[in-house]
Amino acid sequence: MKIQTPPGMRDFYPAEMRLQNWLFRHWREVSRAFGCEEYEGPIFEYLDLYTLKSGPGIVSELFNFEDRGERRFAIRPEMTPTLARMVAARANTLPRPIKWFSTPRMCRAEKPQRGRLREFFQWNVDILGVDDVLADAEVIAVAIEFVRRIGLSERDVVMRVSSRPIAASVLAGMGITSDEEANRAFGLIDRYDKLGRDEFRRQWQEFAPAVDCDRLLAHLEQTDLQQSLGLAEAAGPAGEAAAKQFEELWQRLRQFQVDSYCAFDLKVVRGLAYYTGPVFELSARQGGLRALLGGGRYDNLTQLLDGPSVSGVGFGMGDAPVLELLTELGKLPALSAGLDVFVIDAGSELFPKAVEITSQLRRAGFACDFSYKRQAIGKQFAQAEKRGARLAIVVGAELAESGQLTVKDMRTAQQQAVAAAELLADPVSTLGAMR
Amino acid sequence: MKIQTPPGMRDFYPAEMRLQNWLFRHWREVSRAFGCEEYEGPIFEYLDLYTLKSGPGIVSELFNFEDRGERRFAIRPEMTPTLARMVAARANTLPRPIKWFSTPRMCRAEKPQRGRLREFFQWNVDILGVDDVLADAEVIAVAIEFVRRIGLSERDVVMRVSSRPIAASVLAGMGITSDEEANRAFGLIDRYDKLGRDEFRRQWQEFAPAVDCDRLLAHLEQTDLQQSLGLAEAAGPAGEAAAKQFEELWQRLRQFQVDSYCAFDLKVVRGLAYYTGPVFELSARQGGLRALLGGGRYDNLTQLLDGPSVSGVGFGMGDAPVLELLTELGKLPALSAGLDVFVIDAGSELFPKAVEITSQLRRAGFACDFSYKRQAIGKQFAQAEKRGARLAIVVGAELAESGQLTVKDMRTAQQQAVAAAELLADPVSTLGAMR
Repeated sequence: MKIQTPPGMRDFYPAEMRLQNWLFRHWREVSRAFGCEEYEGPIFEYLDLYTLKSGPGIVSELFNFEDRGERRFAIRPEMTPTLARMVAARANTLPRPIKWFSTPRMCRAEKPQRGRLREFFQWNVDILGVDDVLADAEVIAVAIEFVRRIGLSERDVVMRVSSRPIAASVLAGMGITSDEEANRAFGLIDRYDKLGRDEFRRQWQEFAPAVDCDRLLAHLEQTDLQQSLGLAEAAGPAGEAAAKQFEELWQRLRQFQVDSYCAFDLKVVRGLAYYTGPVFELSARQGGLRALLGGGRYDNLTQLLDGPSVSGVGFGMGDAPVLELLTELGKLPALSAGLDVFVIDAGSELFPKAVEITSQLRRAGFACDFSYKRQAIGKQFAQAEKRGARLAIVVGAELAESGQLTVKDMRTAQQQAVAAAELLADPVSTLGAMR
Repeated sequence: MKIQTPPGMRDFYPAEMRLQNWLFRHWREVSRAFGCEEYEGPIFEYLDLYTLKSGPGIVSELFNFEDRGERRFAIRPEMTPTLARMVAARANTLPRPIKWFSTPRMCRAEKPQRGRLREFFQWNVDILGVDDVLADAEVIAVAIEFVRRIGLSERDVVMRVSSRPIAASVLAGMGITSDEEANRAFGLIDRYDKLGRDEFRRQWQEFAPAVDCDRLLAHLEQTDLQQSLGLAEAAGPAGEAAAKQFEELWQRLRQFQVDSYCAFDLKVVRGLAYYTGPVFELSARQGGLRALLGGGRYDNLTQLLDGPSVSGVGFGMGDAPVLELLTELGKLPALSAGLDVFVIDAGSELFPKAVEITSQLRRAGFACDFSYKRQAIGKQFAQAEKRGARLAIVVGAELAESGQLTVKDMRTAQQQAVAAAELLADPVSTLGAMR
């Protein structure tokens, strides 16, 4: 019986796995560089955890099931509910700020279609327990340091930054004052890039015919921060406070030295209702500003879980979109299996000695291998080459005669005789000098 | 509404996560040292993949569910079926030997009980596509190099090695000749450690009253390899071949320099029917030989999936048992968050400069942080200490005056003035010399 990979799921053969590991290594190293600590949670949670945050509509998007005790679970579709649960459970003892990251695997019950993944990984960074915009600037800086490290410049990506309170003040200045109306307006503005100007205008007329759509569009599309802040300030004290906070955020972005990647963009509001402060989206410039990452400030993340009030700011970045962008830009790294040493025998009677030497090098920390087939030296060298080994060590008859091994640098093809005793007593210095 | 961690699942807060990462790092580094390449698969597979290998009885042990297309899936309870599927799909193109490892997350629908996990991680190492016992010896050597690296000696653990064909020959010599009977006998022998001598004897009498149980026990309990091999040889040509192969395996274990961890033990047969050659189990000496890892040679892994015949040898090691053993032995490592530098401001007006310096150090690859609260230097030093920072850098008024920063080694408490320009131009050498 032939069985396939389930639809929307991926197999990672070694070549794809090397790329995943490269991506994860950068996610982790950048997070740690910023003093963030890693956490993880279970692959499935009680279904209630998701309906509590997103309403019963979420159920059809989840892989959910019962156990024999008739408890209902769902494979996690995002990390935020788990984060909220974990923080709520220890809200009174965790030292502040809580600077955490994770790289969870998660699933969504998407309709299986080409290119639509049901399983993916997502880098999450959150700073919780501080209201200071310093935290907002810092999570934005983590994201930008990551794209910088993987070779994406300001010409490739842009971090579009805005603020819910500023957008709300601008809308209030135009007569949209209730929270409910504002949330509906945000929902529409969030889809602006997808809808296009004409369709946006049509839907806006339906939603709020009394509000001049041209004036709104002029506000949304202008990119002068000071003008937008002025509009917000004119809308009253809430707007003034929001403008002041946003200026401070921008100053912090400069101190973090990431402002060259940032652009103010009032059209970024993020769809989710739970954002309450600055919001941001990292977009690829190529191909119509596809979002690579989105986040923002949320307040009272833990409230739904009966925890003490904890505010925070964070983002999530999927693995697939950024790898696609790197592929399109021709910026994928060339990754080899990274073998340090390939040990070659000059005759099958020397193979046991080759295994011993290999074992000693492995124990010393080297990634080291040998051929499983007993074959001519040339064929073994070809294997060493194929496996990407940096050095080859030939175990020959002279080992018994003079105690020597031949070490070959596979890049320069230079060979050198080395005393086996010396090499095995201190392989790190002996071989290190040759790499 | 308060929502708990699902029963049998674990949350990994930063302290637990550091330990998981430490374990995973060793799993990965050891695997790579042996030239194994990492692979991964989806968190759930078609349910058929598991019933095909283990029969319909497995279904109740799995978390399984349908998608809207009424396909039935199950969260993976082990990695071998995924490995078989992936290898079968590319059996004709993958270069041999296939030396692969993985550290998958998996779930089993255990009855929720204290200490019984529903979700765990398992290190899998497999060498496929070669019939040579060199591969059997090498996977055993990977496992032993791992325990050696995490500080477990021959006094803590033992790798009990046996062989299905030898055990079968010994049984055949006692009159148990059919495959079916032999498999039932293996099932009973596999439970010997759990049952104890008396209960084993009772069950054996029921199963095979004609076979002298005392003689069998004498065979099972004696640890002299040569005697057991002699018994196997006496049982005929199959036994002779098995004995010869096993002697070769033992020679290879010596060449891999891991024989001091190994003991021949005919009682190790592994429950699963699919093992066909050498089998092994790594056991903790303390607490009655609890298994930390089990594995062996299997043939035709891919046969059930209509793939070309591929034999192999491999093992799986769960994360929880080995961490429990380390805890019991007091051998858990002390792990800190591992911050390189903590940047301190000597006054809130200097904080923007501290943020800039932090950003530059992070960009240079250092894990670096600062206090979110503007507070006295002493309190910031206390934070640096608490976060496990190795160095603290104080940004004081002298930065503007003489361009200098103070660098303090947090272990020795030695302080040193450093030119900021020099430090920021080449932080790796400037700070590296101080660590």
